[in-house]
Amino acid sequence: MTEQASRRGLMLVFCAPSGAGKTTITRQLLEKDHKISLSVSATTRESRPGEDEGTHYFFKSVDEFKHMIADDELLEWAEVFGNYYGTPMAPVEKALSEGHDVLFDIDWQGARQLREKGGDDVVSVFVLPPSSGELERRLRDRGQDADDVIMKRMAKAGAEISHWEEFDYVLINDDLERCLADVEHIIGAERVKRARQTGLPGFVKKLLTD
Amino acid sequence: MTEQASRRGLMLVFCAPSGAGKTTITRQLLEKDHKISLSVSATTRESRPGEDEGTHYFFKSVDEFKHMIADDELLEWAEVFGNYYGTPMAPVEKALSEGHDVLFDIDWQGARQLREKGGDDVVSVFVLPPSSGELERRLRDRGQDADDVIMKRMAKAGAEISHWEEFDYVLINDDLERCLADVEHIIGAERVKRARQTGLPGFVKKLLTD
Repeated sequence: MTEQASRRGLMLVFCAPSGAGKTTITRQLLEKDHKISLSVSATTRESRPGEDEGTHYFFKSVDEFKHMIADDELLEWAEVFGNYYGTPMAPVEKALSEGHDVLFDIDWQGARQLREKGGDDVVSVFVLPPSSGELERRLRDRGQDADDVIMKRMAKAGAEISHWEEFDYVLINDDLERCLADVEHIIGAERVKRARQTGLPGFVKKLLTD
Repeated sequence: MTEQASRRGLMLVFCAPSGAGKTTITRQLLEKDHKISLSVSATTRESRPGEDEGTHYFFKSVDEFKHMIADDELLEWAEVFGNYYGTPMAPVEKALSEGHDVLFDIDWQGARQLREKGGDDVVSVFVLPPSSGELERRLRDRGQDADDVIMKRMAKAGAEISHWEEFDYVLINDDLERCLADVEHIIGAERVKRARQTGLPGFVKKLLTD
């Protein structure tokens, strides 16, 4: 068995409207593939019971967070209902340089920022529901919500879907198993892309001179 | 089960030095995956017993072949020991537009021509042997060849390997099963690339307006 050439990790971004099945895909992927782990966000919101610093979030004051923005230490960030959320660059860069892959659970706006900062390290996947009827059914199944709540969710889903063309890969989630297999194909392929295998120039040099 | 959005086929090119294991990978891939088939070359060489027109080759006279070159009807071509070999464009274009994938067994020079004509339809994979020692062993195992023949094969392998940087993906074939899995990942991923799924704009439009 030869040692494989070393490689640089990749940043995998899944985006999907609520109801497309992203959470299930993400959970199953993390269970099956131990070379990829979920990125840890920084946030200014209060920590909740059971949330550990550095595992679930990096908890920051608003001042600290604003300094991170000013010092360009975040790969992406957003303000949601008065709280800041973002991805610190340093731990991601460390993981990538050690050949580990990082998964991001962010929306299309975060994905856009990530692409700007991360360039070719970023692999982006959009997950679509199989039909609007199925999307509505899945959003209704979540609880006993009133019709106007469902309608708002549908509108939000539509807004998210309208950005599908910014993504490298698009999956239609009509079959969870097939969708998961597609995700595994994407990760498997991206890992053997020439440009990501940083050890290849040395490997080939050795091959041609030994 | 929802109908998946239709897609455009892809052109898959494997290149490798003799001894890297390309033939085995190609054969096993064609056996397992029936959505991809080997492209049929045109040639000016004499047909051999058992070779059928249109299945193994399109047999052409030198005049016919030269007309195909002049009329830009070939995706790639080369002259080898006085015979012409090339890939007619029309049957490949028909397959791609019907969502079928086409596999090419050509060298780095053919791959370069294919990329120029085929653009984003082309997915190229270079297969490397795990070491020069292993490459020599595989080349020796092929028969009772004299050392000078082996040396010539090694030199030819080295020349082919020197073009590895022109390829999208690079595999190191130290384990055939893993190598085949990587090839399946590459094809699976390339099939769900957004740009290849020609039915997606219509699918999303329907999703957002239904």
